[in-house]
Amino acid sequence: MPIVTIKVTREGTKPGTTAVTAEEKAQLIKGVSHLLLDVLNKPLESTFVVIDEVETENWGWGGLPALEYRKQRALKPG
Amino acid sequence: MPIVTIKVTREGTKPGTTAVTAEEKAQLIKGVSHLLLDVLNKPLESTFVVIDEVETENWGWGGLPALEYRKQRALKPG
Amino acid sequence: MPIVTIKVTREGTKPGTTAVTAEEKAQLIKGVSHLLLDVLNKPLESTFVVIDEVETENWGWGGLPALEYRKQRALKPG
Amino acid sequence: MPIVTIKVTREGTKPGTTAVTAEEKAQLIKGVSHLLLDVLNKPLESTFVVIDEVETENWGWGGLPALEYRKQRALKPG
Amino acid sequence: MPIVTIKVTREGTKPGTTAVTAEEKAQLIKGVSHLLLDVLNKPLESTFVVIDEVETENWGWGGLPALEYRKQRALKPG
Amino acid sequence: MPIVTIKVTREGTKPGTTAVTAEEKAQLIKGVSHLLLDVLNKPLESTFVVIDEVETENWGWGGLPALEYRKQRALKPG
Repeated sequence: MPIVTIKVTREGTKPGTTAVTAEEKAQLIKGVSHLLLDVLNKPLESTFVVIDEVETENWGWGGLPALEYRKQRALKPG
Repeated sequence: MPIVTIKVTREGTKPGTTAVTAEEKAQLIKGVSHLLLDVLNKPLESTFVVIDEVETENWGWGGLPALEYRKQRALKPG
Repeated sequence: MPIVTIKVTREGTKPGTTAVTAEEKAQLIKGVSHLLLDVLNKPLESTFVVIDEVETENWGWGGLPALEYRKQRALKPG
Repeated sequence: MPIVTIKVTREGTKPGTTAVTAEEKAQLIKGVSHLLLDVLNKPLESTFVVIDEVETENWGWGGLPALEYRKQRALKPG
Repeated sequence: MPIVTIKVTREGTKPGTTAVTAEEKAQLIKGVSHLLLDVLNKPLESTFVVIDEVETENWGWGGLPALEYRKQRALKPG
Repeated sequence: MPIVTIKVTREGTKPGTTAVTAEEKAQLIKGVSHLLLDVLNKPLESTFVVIDEVETENWGWGGLPALEYRKQRALKPG
């Protein structure tokens, strides 16, 4: 009976995509569900997975909006 | 001071609807709030209810995207 | 496929209890599950309910720890 | 490694706004992250903040949809 | 920057265990983090995983406390 | 009507403490509530704050249990 929630920013990770694609979502659902089957013997049919896409403006990291923080990190040496 | 979160897929459950209707949301809010009043004596004015609608593509069940899983279950006898 | 999370403080609501009792939890589970069946036609066997008990010290309201806030509210007229 | 989730209704709090503005979100992210740094010495770069905007229709208070409850409270004396 | 929350009941899945073991938790953390690296190219160092163990009494399924529901399901043929 | 959830590991951040202290919790509650009052004009009495303490074994970072990851980071130069 596991419930897995995956929070990610609403952005693409491959050229030409602006958000997680349906195919990628299906891969995440399959991967997590089978992980719980393998590690904890939880049947697939009693595992829920919820993917929560968050606007980048709504995600904070390093005290800044995420995109702003990434820019600053990219400028830092090493 | 209860906080109740209701996660449901963004789909209609009555003909002609494509998502939970405002009327249905009001019924859920009323029902849950009064349940907490009846069972735990929690005053209505200090109970929050949040309804979180999730795209069907973002909901996994049985290791598959929910709609895909439902199709497969429908094909299974018994 | 609804997922309902009920967050409540870890305290009793009836004389002699210090937390939500097993019986009260069963009533909450039953009540919420049947509400979703009645309002949205969601089958009981695909509804998960999770009750999350929070220490009163970990719950803030009115800018104060909950118990402190309740004391202050009780002292206020009207 | 704190994770802070801020759930607010999707509405403006200043004239001319209909939702939390990007500037306000940045202030919330900064404020919460620095609070955790000051109180618990948690480094900014390992603190995530997620702002979850909820449609007012999806938020229940006092057993009613939030806007309906506010209207009723506004009519009550004192 | 993904945040993954895994809610499971506090029970063992192997003989002699009464809850998820430290080893199993490490496997879940590793598996989920690498899944997000493989599917969405999310770096391990910016992925948080939180495992939330829930008392079985606090988990509802089929309108009943989970253990009660399991007993009833076990009695049903097919 | 904001709901703020603060997830932190169950560990002390000051000598002699093994978890977040009651005093620190009160500071977090006060700080977050007043932040929402200042930035979004949300009244203190309609803001809930919930602090969720997570065992370090249940928190994953960098694909590892958090304490393990910290050890490895500490060994890395720069």
